[in-house]
Amino acid sequence: MSDPKITPEQFNALAADKLPFAGLMGYQVEEIGYGTARMRLPVDEQHLRPGGTVAGPALMGLADATMYAVVLGMVGPVELAVTTNLTCNFLRRPSMVDIVAEGRILKLGKRLAVGEVSLYSEGDPEPVAHVTATYSIPPESTE
Amino acid sequence: MSDPKITPEQFNALAADKLPFAGLMGYQVEEIGYGTARMRLPVDEQHLRPGGTVAGPALMGLADATMYAVVLGMVGPVELAVTTNLTCNFLRRPSMVDIVAEGRILKLGKRLAVGEVSLYSEGDPEPVAHVTATYSIPPESTE
Amino acid sequence: MSDPKITPEQFNALAADKLPFAGLMGYQVEEIGYGTARMRLPVDEQHLRPGGTVAGPALMGLADATMYAVVLGMVGPVELAVTTNLTCNFLRRPSMVDIVAEGRILKLGKRLAVGEVSLYSEGDPEPVAHVTATYSIPPESTE
Amino acid sequence: MSDPKITPEQFNALAADKLPFAGLMGYQVEEIGYGTARMRLPVDEQHLRPGGTVAGPALMGLADATMYAVVLGMVGPVELAVTTNLTCNFLRRPSMVDIVAEGRILKLGKRLAVGEVSLYSEGDPEPVAHVTATYSIPPESTE
Repeated sequence: MSDPKITPEQFNALAADKLPFAGLMGYQVEEIGYGTARMRLPVDEQHLRPGGTVAGPALMGLADATMYAVVLGMVGPVELAVTTNLTCNFLRRPSMVDIVAEGRILKLGKRLAVGEVSLYSEGDPEPVAHVTATYSIPPESTE
Repeated sequence: MSDPKITPEQFNALAADKLPFAGLMGYQVEEIGYGTARMRLPVDEQHLRPGGTVAGPALMGLADATMYAVVLGMVGPVELAVTTNLTCNFLRRPSMVDIVAEGRILKLGKRLAVGEVSLYSEGDPEPVAHVTATYSIPPESTE
Repeated sequence: MSDPKITPEQFNALAADKLPFAGLMGYQVEEIGYGTARMRLPVDEQHLRPGGTVAGPALMGLADATMYAVVLGMVGPVELAVTTNLTCNFLRRPSMVDIVAEGRILKLGKRLAVGEVSLYSEGDPEPVAHVTATYSIPPESTE
Repeated sequence: MSDPKITPEQFNALAADKLPFAGLMGYQVEEIGYGTARMRLPVDEQHLRPGGTVAGPALMGLADATMYAVVLGMVGPVELAVTTNLTCNFLRRPSMVDIVAEGRILKLGKRLAVGEVSLYSEGDPEPVAHVTATYSIPPESTE
């Protein structure tokens, strides 16, 4: 097991510049390991919750940002990594608490990184959504 | 070919209440047919475009809303239809023009509706993203 | 935790009749729990391995059959359950040993069951493929 | 529009060696254009049709082979291209006629090719399944 190549503080600084959607949504990275990451969507982001639930795209965006943290934790702050594919299964209606996303790597290759993210209403062990995503990594980053 | 069961005006009224994310993002429905729909993300939604591009979740949300319009065009204003699965392939970097989404039904069943949405930078025939999505339809709607 | 509603023996009997592709491919169920299942593709199914690797569709079929075992372990021998969506990420080239598939439920609803399956070359902890799949369950089965 | 870089005859010769699953299943390429391909699963492949329908993995395999023909039609006979992601939506129960797959490219990049395949029971305009798939292309092929 290696050390993560980016800290949550470094990720947040990079995200403010490179992931504006994450800032708009209020996503907060909590932990980055080597091959794992945890992010949060705070419940007080009220504009996302009319009707008392979280919009699907806000969940997909949270999963996408979490996978980005997973990848950067393994390859370092590579700004050019881009999502090429994302599949989301919506499982349950989120409740009025924070959403917590737990991401982990499935494969880090030279050119592609694949991972999965499970999203939970905080305190509930049953996931509200499950995402698999693929990131393309620029050649110079891992070779 | 049947007539669509909802007009763009009816859809916009329903979306204002039921699709708050669509309002936040500035999505605008342009056309709803029986089994088709076209929606737009205007270029002047600047908060989505720092760095000159559209965030991936904004594209996925646009596709999701477009599929919702496709489904409601076939079953009428059923508020309880929910997305169960969405797969997005990100193909090209969007340019600084409106994004136009063209959705069409692949199958309308009693319980599930499946469709695909192609997203374009306006004026460019090459898609920037392609989405397939499944909606679950409440039993009373189509039986 | 409930008991599984079908045994491996019952599943194999049902599969011989209802999953002919599983028989053609030589898949063998090893274990069914309540919400989990493990299946195997034996290495001696030589017709699948010219060139020394397992064909992608053989992996997807194994994952599909594993999810079917997961679902039947929760709802009993419901012959009419059908796959509606399957997403596979191919991660690594399989080696010349058995493929083992580990499936688990993500959500069992009244109408849809969603799960994930990780596939391994036996003895290697890194997955060769990862699948998420959705099954549609006939109304009378769970209501 | 360019000319296709491989003929159906060349593809069949290559497939016999490199796509053994396609041979096992009886898939036949019918047409390869630049960015398109059509393949067929003949109805007389009886081992695939107990119960009068085509197994899901046989459909996914047909779509995978069709995408391979689409990609080779654009980059030439690159044996090392591999599927990295495949998403299938199963839409309708196939009937007892040939299955015809129509594939087309969504994006050919330097490293990834993405396409979609619609599968039909011959003579029926409603698709039985829809697939999107991504192929990874070795660096030397397109650069």
